[in-house]
Amino acid sequence: MRIFVFAGSLRKDSVNKKLAGLISQKLEGLGAEVDFADFREFEMPLYDNDIEQSDGLPAGAQGLADRISASDAFVIVTPEYNHSIPGPLKNAIDWISRIRPYPTAGKICFLASAAPSMVGGSRAVIALRPVLSPMGAWLSGDSFSLAQANQAFDDNGGLANADIEKLLDGMLDRFVKVSASAQTS
Amino acid sequence: MRIFVFAGSLRKDSVNKKLAGLISQKLEGLGAEVDFADFREFEMPLYDNDIEQSDGLPAGAQGLADRISASDAFVIVTPEYNHSIPGPLKNAIDWISRIRPYPTAGKICFLASAAPSMVGGSRAVIALRPVLSPMGAWLSGDSFSLAQANQAFDDNGGLANADIEKLLDGMLDRFVKVSASAQTS
Amino acid sequence: MRIFVFAGSLRKDSVNKKLAGLISQKLEGLGAEVDFADFREFEMPLYDNDIEQSDGLPAGAQGLADRISASDAFVIVTPEYNHSIPGPLKNAIDWISRIRPYPTAGKICFLASAAPSMVGGSRAVIALRPVLSPMGAWLSGDSFSLAQANQAFDDNGGLANADIEKLLDGMLDRFVKVSASAQTS
Amino acid sequence: MRIFVFAGSLRKDSVNKKLAGLISQKLEGLGAEVDFADFREFEMPLYDNDIEQSDGLPAGAQGLADRISASDAFVIVTPEYNHSIPGPLKNAIDWISRIRPYPTAGKICFLASAAPSMVGGSRAVIALRPVLSPMGAWLSGDSFSLAQANQAFDDNGGLANADIEKLLDGMLDRFVKVSASAQTS
Repeated sequence: MRIFVFAGSLRKDSVNKKLAGLISQKLEGLGAEVDFADFREFEMPLYDNDIEQSDGLPAGAQGLADRISASDAFVIVTPEYNHSIPGPLKNAIDWISRIRPYPTAGKICFLASAAPSMVGGSRAVIALRPVLSPMGAWLSGDSFSLAQANQAFDDNGGLANADIEKLLDGMLDRFVKVSASAQTS
Repeated sequence: MRIFVFAGSLRKDSVNKKLAGLISQKLEGLGAEVDFADFREFEMPLYDNDIEQSDGLPAGAQGLADRISASDAFVIVTPEYNHSIPGPLKNAIDWISRIRPYPTAGKICFLASAAPSMVGGSRAVIALRPVLSPMGAWLSGDSFSLAQANQAFDDNGGLANADIEKLLDGMLDRFVKVSASAQTS
Repeated sequence: MRIFVFAGSLRKDSVNKKLAGLISQKLEGLGAEVDFADFREFEMPLYDNDIEQSDGLPAGAQGLADRISASDAFVIVTPEYNHSIPGPLKNAIDWISRIRPYPTAGKICFLASAAPSMVGGSRAVIALRPVLSPMGAWLSGDSFSLAQANQAFDDNGGLANADIEKLLDGMLDRFVKVSASAQTS
Repeated sequence: MRIFVFAGSLRKDSVNKKLAGLISQKLEGLGAEVDFADFREFEMPLYDNDIEQSDGLPAGAQGLADRISASDAFVIVTPEYNHSIPGPLKNAIDWISRIRPYPTAGKICFLASAAPSMVGGSRAVIALRPVLSPMGAWLSGDSFSLAQANQAFDDNGGLANADIEKLLDGMLDRFVKVSASAQTS
């Protein structure tokens, strides 16, 4: 089973990328084949219907869609900007949403977030659900938000707090089991 | 496989109950064992922590929780009140959320709505997701909102519009397949 | 200028009531006439359209609507149940929403919340906005969420943290100024 | 009194721009000084904290912020992409949110939307509220969503349906009165 993982942040040194990396490693440990991407790989302009009409889907958006399509399940680790989805991540979703059938349709999706705040970006996860559900993604019953993310990692890239790491491990275990078993198509 | 179905409306003559009945019938046709409930069966007061401390969970709330727990998956057909979840339905969810583990944990959940408006109650579905996800429910990648519900049914209780009925049929087919196959626990 | 204040919690010993009391006191200090209510004053059943048809609006719902109507502005201090509006509060809003014009129409509204968590109930505030906006309430540009509310009050009922108290004071000052000046009708 | 108006769409021939134009004209008729902008004036890249660190705010984002700051109130007419805020509009908001104090702080804000669907883009308005409220904007008690927007305009750029135009007129009248009178700072 193949799982696609990326973080919705463009900056190089992002706690969300760090969390996406940790999740990827854990999913591999659970037997999944992981396709990990850096969001910077998917270059694309701001969505503009005129551009779509004249030039079609930008290569970066098509690339992101293809990586999701080629997987059985996917993980988005999202920063929270202004209590909601980061503009660049929403922009990428808007581009790939132009493809039919949706690349996300029938894929089990695990949402995570990380932020320096005490909320850990959970409002971005909340805002993503009504966007991804109508695109046919099956949202995991779990989601993981890492609070105070600047101090949450130990030197080896694991989580400093063992209880929080155990919580994440349980969620990912369920996610892999469901993704492997569910016949969504 | 057992699926619990109810509509979050107390009134006797509700389009949501009608839709819940239709969905139940269709799920049985797809081979599921259906437990259909009238929301009026679950009598309970407004949530008050003082009442919970002195009297524990009301019988109606416990009954609703037990019916969900005894099922592999569940369907809520929700009216939309003021662009969100009806107070009585949210109240019932608040009561059952006091039980650990959550009765909803690991259950696949299909959300539907019906309303006389052109939106068909979809904002109640949107508002339910961030409530049910943290209670461990796995939200179906599909949800169904029946617009202009007052005129949507034919004389036999089916949907008057064949295209819309086909859409619903496809969603329920996927829901049954995923519920039967997914190992969420 | 008259401001109506209540907390959407039924329990006697609620941090939300405590915060509503503190806000009332501060609003009086700013020159407003405050009408403070205990949510328990407004007894009403779960919303049921059949009951409304046969018996009309319950006295408790009418009472709540009248108190809002008689004021120039209002404050709701809300607990957060399951990441959203408490069932009993939503139920009360659903009842009063049956009145035309809406009792809330054209009233400036300040939303606050308190909770033991680090989020301080802010998700209930987020969920209330799309409910109250279509009922014509003008939502203050500020809202106040009190995190770790169990330890947030000092022995005199003030806030233990002076910075947080100052933040609240600034918000209430703006709220009173706008409520006094804005010609919303 | 000065009101800034723009539509969150980049395409040239957008129903949202058309609605923004109509609103601008009506606001001028009500005595306001209107500053109308085309969203294409504000060129900016996808938000990237690394770019912000190295280059500061892009000129387009600064320009948008300046136009809001120079006004007493503002109007956003938003398309709805995937049940939420368009990526490019959220991206612009994310950029200007880096400025302190927020350019939106203390400004009365009227939200509108237009879409070919029956919902008229109202879910984008719903998604914008929890973004703009914490940025200090005072959200109008009214918002306007134009359904079936492709057929909603007459040949003179007015609304074909007189009842809907009257609804909009009432909302804008209140918006101008409140914006002119409210002392939000």
